[in-house]
Amino acid sequence: MRLRNNKNAKDIINNSRYVVLNPEEQISTWSKLFGNKNPIHIEIGMGKGNFIIGMAKLHPEINFIGIEMYDSVLMHAVKKLDELELSNLKLIRMDANDIDKVFKKEISLIYLNFSDPWPKNRNAKRRLTHERLLSKYDNIFKKDKVIFMKTDNIKLFAFSIESLSNYGYTLKNVTLDLHSEDIENVETEYEKKFSSKGIRINRLEAYK
Amino acid sequence: MRLRNNKNAKDIINNSRYVVLNPEEQISTWSKLFGNKNPIHIEIGMGKGNFIIGMAKLHPEINFIGIEMYDSVLMHAVKKLDELELSNLKLIRMDANDIDKVFKKEISLIYLNFSDPWPKNRNAKRRLTHERLLSKYDNIFKKDKVIFMKTDNIKLFAFSIESLSNYGYTLKNVTLDLHSEDIENVETEYEKKFSSKGIRINRLEAYK
Repeated sequence: MRLRNNKNAKDIINNSRYVVLNPEEQISTWSKLFGNKNPIHIEIGMGKGNFIIGMAKLHPEINFIGIEMYDSVLMHAVKKLDELELSNLKLIRMDANDIDKVFKKEISLIYLNFSDPWPKNRNAKRRLTHERLLSKYDNIFKKDKVIFMKTDNIKLFAFSIESLSNYGYTLKNVTLDLHSEDIENVETEYEKKFSSKGIRINRLEAYK
Repeated sequence: MRLRNNKNAKDIINNSRYVVLNPEEQISTWSKLFGNKNPIHIEIGMGKGNFIIGMAKLHPEINFIGIEMYDSVLMHAVKKLDELELSNLKLIRMDANDIDKVFKKEISLIYLNFSDPWPKNRNAKRRLTHERLLSKYDNIFKKDKVIFMKTDNIKLFAFSIESLSNYGYTLKNVTLDLHSEDIENVETEYEKKFSSKGIRINRLEAYK
């Protein structure tokens, strides 16, 4: 079953006009691929794509790239796009660790939504706000460094506040209960499920 | 009733050997008052004093000063001290706005515990982590600037993260659930009451 599913996922992904199959080849030339000089925003770990697809619909003046590591998850985003014509959206299947092999001085904003909290200390380096990753992000930003993050995990949120602050980011628009605030918010699948259970969503913006 | 109570509170305060009645006169000479060169930590808004008294007992190597604006509240701290001999503790009745008239380049650490959240935006300037206050604190710190804060109020906590970060402080040891962590924690009266109801306590350390 597993094999068939993976094969199925791969086929769906390979046939999508949204997916960029060899993203390393686009390094430094993503604007050319989009055919305009609009700012490029990426979401690392987009899951089933609700957020990035919603943002692409809302903001045609921005180019979006969704990144997801797993075929089986990316497939769900691809399926949602079947009947949509969004010229400002691309998807990539890749590991976040390779981010600086795919982008170079061309990104304006990184979204980190409900990233894996990697709760054990020995796995701290895998958290997407660990300084190991932050130093990779340094190389992909065009000019100003901007990270928007949301999570229900209070340990990951606290870790990220420390890590971003220590790395020189200034924190703005922090909230420990996003859904009580009156700001534009495109929800992820995960977010819908958990906030409907009364779990508070934390959010921050980090600027450097 | 109110008048009699206030009179009573004033008498109790005026007769306490712990209370410094004219703190402006001690500016720049607090170490002399304590009779040693140990670091001086202050708590702004100490309430009934549980925290600062507990800390003074635990850390004889540090001098503590508790600050409280209201006689009627300060009185409770004074009463608790009746039968204690703590040479490393002093109390002051004053408004936090006057902090830089009372201390000058002599404080090592400020504690802000369960400060008034001043929830309305028009009162933001009154919050003890507003930049208006942070700029006053600049003048009272001896060298490194260190603020330890805890609160159950998520809006005040979020505001403080932004304000401290924007003012150049680096945030460390952040937690959104203090009581789940294994760190030394002297509880305030307020904290005991609210954490026992399952309300999460937020804490941070800020360094500049």
